[in-house]
Amino acid sequence: MYGKCNHSPDPPSPPRHRVGFLQKNNSLEERSRIVSSLQERTAKSLLTCDNGGGDARFRRTETDFSNLFARDLLPAKNGEEQTMQFLLEIVEILTNYIRKTFDRSTKVLDFHHPHQLLEGMEGFNLELSEQPESLEQILVDCRDTLKYGVRTGHPRFFNQLSTGLDIVGLAGEWLTSTANTNMFTYEIAPVFVLMEQLTLKKMREIIGWPEGEGDGIFSPGGAISNMYSVMIARYKYFPEVKTKGMTAAPRLVLFTSEHSHYSIKKASAALGFGTENLILLNTDERGRVIPADLEAKVIEAKQKGHVPMFVNATAGTTVYGAFDPINEIADICEKYNMWLHVDGAWGGGLLMSRKHRHKLNGVERANSVTWNPHKMMGVPLQCSAILVRERGLLQNCNSMSAGYLFQPDKQYDVTYDTGDKAIQCGRHVDIFKFWLMWKAKGTVGFEQHIDKCLDLSAYLYNKIKDREGFKMVFDGEPQHTNVCFWYLPLGLRGLPDGEERRERLHKVAPKIKAMMMESGTTMVGYQPQGNKVNFFRMVISNPAATRSDIDFLVEEIEQLGHDL
Amino acid sequence: MYGKCNHSPDPPSPPRHRVGFLQKNNSLEERSRIVSSLQERTAKSLLTCDNGGGDARFRRTETDFSNLFARDLLPAKNGEEQTMQFLLEIVEILTNYIRKTFDRSTKVLDFHHPHQLLEGMEGFNLELSEQPESLEQILVDCRDTLKYGVRTGHPRFFNQLSTGLDIVGLAGEWLTSTANTNMFTYEIAPVFVLMEQLTLKKMREIIGWPEGEGDGIFSPGGAISNMYSVMIARYKYFPEVKTKGMTAAPRLVLFTSEHSHYSIKKASAALGFGTENLILLNTDERGRVIPADLEAKVIEAKQKGHVPMFVNATAGTTVYGAFDPINEIADICEKYNMWLHVDGAWGGGLLMSRKHRHKLNGVERANSVTWNPHKMMGVPLQCSAILVRERGLLQNCNSMSAGYLFQPDKQYDVTYDTGDKAIQCGRHVDIFKFWLMWKAKGTVGFEQHIDKCLDLSAYLYNKIKDREGFKMVFDGEPQHTNVCFWYLPLGLRGLPDGEERRERLHKVAPKIKAMMMESGTTMVGYQPQGNKVNFFRMVISNPAATRSDIDFLVEEIEQLGHDL
Repeated sequence: MYGKCNHSPDPPSPPRHRVGFLQKNNSLEERSRIVSSLQERTAKSLLTCDNGGGDARFRRTETDFSNLFARDLLPAKNGEEQTMQFLLEIVEILTNYIRKTFDRSTKVLDFHHPHQLLEGMEGFNLELSEQPESLEQILVDCRDTLKYGVRTGHPRFFNQLSTGLDIVGLAGEWLTSTANTNMFTYEIAPVFVLMEQLTLKKMREIIGWPEGEGDGIFSPGGAISNMYSVMIARYKYFPEVKTKGMTAAPRLVLFTSEHSHYSIKKASAALGFGTENLILLNTDERGRVIPADLEAKVIEAKQKGHVPMFVNATAGTTVYGAFDPINEIADICEKYNMWLHVDGAWGGGLLMSRKHRHKLNGVERANSVTWNPHKMMGVPLQCSAILVRERGLLQNCNSMSAGYLFQPDKQYDVTYDTGDKAIQCGRHVDIFKFWLMWKAKGTVGFEQHIDKCLDLSAYLYNKIKDREGFKMVFDGEPQHTNVCFWYLPLGLRGLPDGEERRERLHKVAPKIKAMMMESGTTMVGYQPQGNKVNFFRMVISNPAATRSDIDFLVEEIEQLGHDL
Repeated sequence: MYGKCNHSPDPPSPPRHRVGFLQKNNSLEERSRIVSSLQERTAKSLLTCDNGGGDARFRRTETDFSNLFARDLLPAKNGEEQTMQFLLEIVEILTNYIRKTFDRSTKVLDFHHPHQLLEGMEGFNLELSEQPESLEQILVDCRDTLKYGVRTGHPRFFNQLSTGLDIVGLAGEWLTSTANTNMFTYEIAPVFVLMEQLTLKKMREIIGWPEGEGDGIFSPGGAISNMYSVMIARYKYFPEVKTKGMTAAPRLVLFTSEHSHYSIKKASAALGFGTENLILLNTDERGRVIPADLEAKVIEAKQKGHVPMFVNATAGTTVYGAFDPINEIADICEKYNMWLHVDGAWGGGLLMSRKHRHKLNGVERANSVTWNPHKMMGVPLQCSAILVRERGLLQNCNSMSAGYLFQPDKQYDVTYDTGDKAIQCGRHVDIFKFWLMWKAKGTVGFEQHIDKCLDLSAYLYNKIKDREGFKMVFDGEPQHTNVCFWYLPLGLRGLPDGEERRERLHKVAPKIKAMMMESGTTMVGYQPQGNKVNFFRMVISNPAATRSDIDFLVEEIEQLGHDL
């Protein structure tokens, strides 16, 4: 259990049971030896908690967690010392994990199948029991949980839109969990409520709404943020639906790209529109909505007597990273009096970059915007904002004026209570880590991060676009960091285009991915799209990634896939 | 900045700029002095990271955060040492906060109005800027954030249903944020996905569903869990609504108690039923649904040609802590073929107690159950489960089969991927802290916690029910830990019941609450309910609370309110 402390060059000392390292009965000579030893170790040890292996040994010898239980921790009487010792052990486990996360010589993951983990890996027992486990076992469980997990901050983890492990963001999240409060009232989250308000205003300014006016809220993720947009749009056009239900409105129609995120479809099912009333728009070869197709479908819906109400333009699609042409879509929305939502869950971060924000030109014409700092901006999960241009709608759409939660006769200005704006009641504090990162990096820091990720994806694109065995899914430099490509094993390269080639190619990416995961070296996503068979979708949002990691990925794919 | 370290009895040493404490140029004599000093401080210091103030000073003297920035932390080259130093400083801030949280001599909060905080308290500047701040400033910001916040784990914080600071749960949350992953696929959250599955099964067993069969998911809170229940019920009875919208169904009617949580109303608005189609049920004087009223209203709705579809029974109402009679409601649901949901967000925890679980008798007859471990069970926010008796409904209701997220051709058993069950896409890991607490406490540990809280509320009830100046809102021992009462200042006690008395009494609780918050000594909620003017609602879920804290609260109310 204490194996990872063995950085001491000295032979093991005789055990001193529950006795401090620096006791009064130490001789002066021994003290000198200790001091020298401390010097040496201090120079070696990077983990501050372990500053001086001697000190660390002192700490550990003293606390025998095998006889301690949760009930011995605070608020237990005299529980303070054990509590601090326990938390420090946890911190050591976490800081070790963090160091390994950034170390390219470690694996991204140590893959096991569900049945293997369920059977219990080397004593890692997931089952819950009647009786308490010792804190020693709890610490072992924490180590095991991390051991069998996936290092999403590893420089070679490219599997998701959310990657990386931002240290300041992490510190913010540790503080958030320690504060353990709830966003619904100013009363119990005064600082966080104000941080949310100021940060949302800043985001609206960056979108380009005059003086940052408008409204917004942090929600548990992009899908919920997108759901908010549909709800608010409905409330704007047909407020009576709130009280009378969907039958009070005519048949309402929504529009989104065939490449858009499935959350718009989930929202249309959940909110009672029905997925059939969500019309999918055609895209060009790069995955961008064709505005003329939108207009044609709007006209068609109107001819049927339906009411076109809502258009979602995606800023950064999930697979291709495509940006729909917002200005042209906004023209059509204005012409036909429809709500324009921009789903910038993935691409919103580009607004922070003077070089790349033009890809969202027209975003200031949107009625609402989803923007997930937990994706491109590297904020720890969860952190997603829904921003609304017209003030008051969010509140009026969701307000139920529950007197037991939101008392109008409190001593402070209760307009700061946010609970009645939300579809939630209690709401997790998602703002602090983001606010803290913004403070620590400045706006310019986010810009640098985003520019660097886009540079890296251009590097990858240029490296593979004409490379033997690689074939791009679409031509031209990607708009976002998404680089989509097939890898063709040697045996497929000569095959003529046709069903056999398609079928075989469809199986290549899953096979390579499975081998990557088994070896644990890297992770990258794949999927089919429309009539295109499985291809790799490389995305870069990880601040730890460098060109060498891109090179590694390409070589790994070639090595694993060459002879498939 | 380092003020809280001044536990050293020594006079301040001359500054050693960026030079370690134990340097080679220290004389032997100085070393001896240092060792003695270390001994003394070690004995005093309880915070392990500070074990030996000398060591702490060494650490701090070495790391000058005023010249370090976020860009110097990992993944920066050679950023490991600064990263560890920075995280350790954060941990010190947090452990200091934790110690103070449990210390009754500290305040619960240091209240300021929004405008005061926005103006910047003693240099605490909430505004975001272009340029980065130093890590020293970031550490100051973290201290300030906690300073102006509310200690929700303080033994005298009684303001919300979620109180307390569980140390193991906190450790679990720190680990969760370090792992920074997403619940949507087994691929990137293998351990957490399995923990969720096993924990949900255990919860279903405790509900009483045969062999723990069924389904479920952790959601971002009770309101969303309740929304799930309405969606799933609709899908069960009218699956075509998913594709065709609410107009494909007849006029559907939902039922819930007038005392129930407003999230049922929010769900009926959001999902397209309309709040007018949510029928409120009358309750008895204790806030429990009157089953005969439900049946009468069901019959009335049917006579109008509407379709009664869904009944919510609350297990533990927000204000009174009332438990609706589930068995009698279940009989009516069976008779009229309606979905029975039990909202046990607050009261579900009582299922863990052999002594109190009878209050939820009949819960095993529910079609779905909301149960928030982040309330009565003391799990850190957010942790809420929606549990469904019939397997498959959750998946079929929400599934959109997005190929880019959920590839059927992965190398592992993809039935473990949970993303398509959710209305969310990405989903925060809410399970680990709960799983870890369950391991650490055992089922028996939760039972003891719950029994203790209910004992404490009985103590409060017995203390004040006949006490001069106190008047209970309803008669009899509360079913949950909610104790609802008015406090009557001396001047009101002689007044006859009437409008003047009501008006004056209505203002008493807000005034006392404001004074409590200004002095920062304790916090307890108040609200009106129906035609009852503002009264205090005391709730106990805080494991740190003892009888002495209850006594303190009562005395504080008397002291502040006596002469109002």
